[in-house]
Amino acid sequence: MDFSSKLLENAVNEVSRLPGIGKRTALRLVLHLLKQPASNTTFLSEALLHLRNDVKTCQKCHNISDTNLCDICSNTKRKPEIVCVVEDIRDVMAIESTSQFNGLYHVLGGKISPIEGIGPQNLEIDSLIAKIEKGEIKEIIFALSSTMEGDTTNFYIFKQIEKFNITTSTIARGISVGDELEYADEVTLGRSIVNRIPFEQSIKS
Amino acid sequence: MDFSSKLLENAVNEVSRLPGIGKRTALRLVLHLLKQPASNTTFLSEALLHLRNDVKTCQKCHNISDTNLCDICSNTKRKPEIVCVVEDIRDVMAIESTSQFNGLYHVLGGKISPIEGIGPQNLEIDSLIAKIEKGEIKEIIFALSSTMEGDTTNFYIFKQIEKFNITTSTIARGISVGDELEYADEVTLGRSIVNRIPFEQSIKS
Repeated sequence: MDFSSKLLENAVNEVSRLPGIGKRTALRLVLHLLKQPASNTTFLSEALLHLRNDVKTCQKCHNISDTNLCDICSNTKRKPEIVCVVEDIRDVMAIESTSQFNGLYHVLGGKISPIEGIGPQNLEIDSLIAKIEKGEIKEIIFALSSTMEGDTTNFYIFKQIEKFNITTSTIARGISVGDELEYADEVTLGRSIVNRIPFEQSIKS
Repeated sequence: MDFSSKLLENAVNEVSRLPGIGKRTALRLVLHLLKQPASNTTFLSEALLHLRNDVKTCQKCHNISDTNLCDICSNTKRKPEIVCVVEDIRDVMAIESTSQFNGLYHVLGGKISPIEGIGPQNLEIDSLIAKIEKGEIKEIIFALSSTMEGDTTNFYIFKQIEKFNITTSTIARGISVGDELEYADEVTLGRSIVNRIPFEQSIKS
């Protein structure tokens, strides 16, 4: 691309560094900002800078938070002995939106992925083990995505905490509520048959 | 969405104001920035602010430029008497990349669109008429997109400049080079037959 303005080229280059945004999309976004009042660009830039410079992570669960202890961890009505292990804040938000979980979270900050150069030492695994060693936790629920990386991470953590006397579980995999069986993939359908649950239990939930 | 951090929520809200970016995409982009070094966010914010506050438009063609007169308008090797009327900088970049045009541009800054509240007075039409009145221009090439808005804008400008003794033309519409006839839409194919060109001319270009 041949830009008539260095300022424009620079802005497009910076925006196109974001994941999934190519040069053409970046140009469209930047031209949109130029057509809007200057205050919009100021608000956007300041919001990003404030977030990057001032945001904290909760000392207990390592979720993104404005305070040293996040709202979930500081909520005394929740059960601190049940901990759900998730990858990042999006998973916390997804589970919270179901209103079905009343324990605390532990945000790993990613999954073990040798290809991306992410090893156990880059994730919040040691801090999870430390919590377990203190005897604070009775049950760990693994809620990582069921990919190669997710399964590897689950297994790595499981091996580390096997020696402790705590319950471990993983979220159920199965056919989505409302989905037709014929369109489900075989692995998921197979797992949902192997891990079938008592009918009485299913009509309660 | 229920955010655990006001700073995060604010950043996501600002990013999701950009066209074509929803809350989920905005969250993905913002979390990406949080994983990158803080300098990346600084560079991005500064590039956007610099662009919005310091960018100029060329006094002659109204294209985005770092200087008062853009590189194209100040290039003495180009023919100032042929002016191509386009919507915005993306069209200038597209035509420039063909290396087939040696005149100057006139950037309207949009198209007449009553639905979006854009009338002729919001576009750089008066400045185009002023240039023509000065007798600087011998030929006008309309290169707006062939939509309802584009055609309306073309026609509006054409009516205004009819009285002057200048050549007007519009870029050729037809089947893309390399395209199969059977997949072309009827309107384009029809126009390409009505506006057929001498065979000798086609093998020269």
